[in-house]
Amino acid sequence: MRQSLLFTKTKKETPKDETSINAQLLIKAGFVHKDIAGVYTYLPLGLRVLNNIQEVIRQELNAVDCQEISMTALQPKEIWEKTGRWSDDVVDNWFKTTLKNGNELGLAFTHEEPMANMMKQFVSSYKDLPKLVYQFQTKFRNELRAKSGIMRGREFMMNDLYSFHTDEEAHKVFYETMKEVYMKIFTRLGLGKNTFLTMSSGQPFSKYSFEFQTLSDAGEDVLLFDRQKNIAINKDDFNDQIFTDFGLNKDDYTFEEAKSIEIGDIYSLGTKYSQALDLTYADSESKVHPVYMGSYGIGISRVMGTIVETSHDEAGIIWPKEIAPYQVHFISLCQDDQKDEAEQVYKTLQAKGVDVLFDDRSDVRPGQKFADSDMFGIPLRVVISAKTLQLQSVEVKQRNSPDTELISIIELMNRM
Amino acid sequence: MRQSLLFTKTKKETPKDETSINAQLLIKAGFVHKDIAGVYTYLPLGLRVLNNIQEVIRQELNAVDCQEISMTALQPKEIWEKTGRWSDDVVDNWFKTTLKNGNELGLAFTHEEPMANMMKQFVSSYKDLPKLVYQFQTKFRNELRAKSGIMRGREFMMNDLYSFHTDEEAHKVFYETMKEVYMKIFTRLGLGKNTFLTMSSGQPFSKYSFEFQTLSDAGEDVLLFDRQKNIAINKDDFNDQIFTDFGLNKDDYTFEEAKSIEIGDIYSLGTKYSQALDLTYADSESKVHPVYMGSYGIGISRVMGTIVETSHDEAGIIWPKEIAPYQVHFISLCQDDQKDEAEQVYKTLQAKGVDVLFDDRSDVRPGQKFADSDMFGIPLRVVISAKTLQLQSVEVKQRNSPDTELISIIELMNRM
Repeated sequence: MRQSLLFTKTKKETPKDETSINAQLLIKAGFVHKDIAGVYTYLPLGLRVLNNIQEVIRQELNAVDCQEISMTALQPKEIWEKTGRWSDDVVDNWFKTTLKNGNELGLAFTHEEPMANMMKQFVSSYKDLPKLVYQFQTKFRNELRAKSGIMRGREFMMNDLYSFHTDEEAHKVFYETMKEVYMKIFTRLGLGKNTFLTMSSGQPFSKYSFEFQTLSDAGEDVLLFDRQKNIAINKDDFNDQIFTDFGLNKDDYTFEEAKSIEIGDIYSLGTKYSQALDLTYADSESKVHPVYMGSYGIGISRVMGTIVETSHDEAGIIWPKEIAPYQVHFISLCQDDQKDEAEQVYKTLQAKGVDVLFDDRSDVRPGQKFADSDMFGIPLRVVISAKTLQLQSVEVKQRNSPDTELISIIELMNRM
Repeated sequence: MRQSLLFTKTKKETPKDETSINAQLLIKAGFVHKDIAGVYTYLPLGLRVLNNIQEVIRQELNAVDCQEISMTALQPKEIWEKTGRWSDDVVDNWFKTTLKNGNELGLAFTHEEPMANMMKQFVSSYKDLPKLVYQFQTKFRNELRAKSGIMRGREFMMNDLYSFHTDEEAHKVFYETMKEVYMKIFTRLGLGKNTFLTMSSGQPFSKYSFEFQTLSDAGEDVLLFDRQKNIAINKDDFNDQIFTDFGLNKDDYTFEEAKSIEIGDIYSLGTKYSQALDLTYADSESKVHPVYMGSYGIGISRVMGTIVETSHDEAGIIWPKEIAPYQVHFISLCQDDQKDEAEQVYKTLQAKGVDVLFDDRSDVRPGQKFADSDMFGIPLRVVISAKTLQLQSVEVKQRNSPDTELISIIELMNRM
């Protein structure tokens, strides 16, 4: 895309009403706009990152035969009453609203209930199982405070997957698969090195569950972890009982302690929701059982915020390659008589299918162009100017390295 | 995709609680699931159609340099008070909710206000204009009744574009462009033949505006149109004044009358919102003016419902090619000893990049497979069976034609 068309602008000043680094950097770079605390609009570059994160997750979930749907925000009271989660005394972050006829509705903070209720249409026999269904959907949570930028929103994008199996045994096989799938996703998203599969108390669904925690000073959790032995426990749950229950010996490990962000979690739900909502199947002898469920969630906007928190420098964001808004930031410093040559390189890159943002702005100083580029955090910067054109070259620089390199335009095309 | 993985099932019975053809056919085919009246979950095949419609629109809007963002459902009261649209006496279909601190929020039924408010961050000079910004976003409308299936939802997907120009003259040029862009979009969506650019009273924004109306018995509007002279007027606005105002002579036309569905509209907003929200720019002489706005909307789920209403037969839906959930429905009737050959054809189709749904189910009768295929409405059906394999062939059939044709597997691949 041509940067001259981009309606957003970068800001020099740090927004005064934002205390989190992720919101500060994303707003300064023009990736998001705050509508109200915890409620953010995704602007063109930010939306591209959000979509790229979704696409990585979609690929990995489709690879294990999960199917994508899209459920609704508006929720009927009845199904949540059946599971005991309608009351504000039980769930303290509902947003609720009212139909013209006076009926109360909720705005979904999660989707176990509508998912189990919907599956009743399609599951009746053991032959219908297993089934794996996911979505990318806006969740609404009426947080008392929202000070963590896009990491804890009142309205935010989430990926939630629900699994339906005949019994615990079949569920457990898939649950183990999901531990690997999630770690693969977080690795592709650039968070693999500092993300730990973490034992935690499984509230509200079971005695224990697993979270994925990423080390970061911006985290609200505290993690105890042994990097070498690849074990991590949420500090809240760090006690002798958990070691006993998992058959581990505490003395075998050397735990470090650090702040961390919960970026995903996987739950064994058992038959809690299927029993409450009457989601059952008949086995081969026509005996009826409740379906065994699991749920698996990744906060998309929280992941995006976590990446910013853990991958930036003083000049701006440093996006991992897989989710960067563009792969190449092609910056022209050419004056009028050489603009055609810059245009030609841009068109050749486009023709090669390179995902490129072209800074074709003619009224902006080189210093501002470089500053914008650093704020955007696109992995590869390619500069063309009168100087580089003397050698039929361009200057290339990785966002995460100070080194620049002059290479011929032909070499640039070969590398793409 | 393998149909054996698909968790949805077709239904024989017409759902009793749905009076609209679109909801009946979409639910029977397993494309959508009703959560509450006017609130539908999009299941795997339905979501694919919805995404395909969005992609057509995205391509056409990007082609005229529009930029995609994603705004929020939760809306602060303040900006809507400034334009006079917060009160339930003015806007009677708000869903409202409340923050923990007691502040009221609305759920966006449209986005003129947040869009104009957000643009203040990025527009200050005439050099920042024009700007064209769009989104695909869930809208919430507290309809008293919701009986038209996915055509009039309480929660539904909309594409809304907003234009920002220096003055009416510049706006008008883009407004004329959008008439053509929208008609191109509706043509690609298979609705071109029966969709009319329609003069209507421009409430709430200006004296006149234009709608896009598609002829259908399911419509809530009545259209007066002259197909030959390509003119159409909403019956509500059909009076002498409109002819006078547009400089037309009523006697020059022969009007037919028919029911129609409003699938899109384009509005000149003038400076109503920019003045109320203080969205201004300085001209080259530093004189400050309010920005001239336009808004342009297509109801994505309404378009999907309209296509079903206008393109189906007794057996099910007939999707236009560009938005069908899959391009090819490849149905295997092969028994165990010939399954490998069907698998081989499926894999070859996939390798060629063909968008194919493979009915690999082994426990389903041929009659049910054909019935399902007709309900799904995929443009091309390809059947492989012991009989066709005797001639190394497959049987192909277009969804919208009764004719079948036996062609060699080699010929099938050549056609793809």
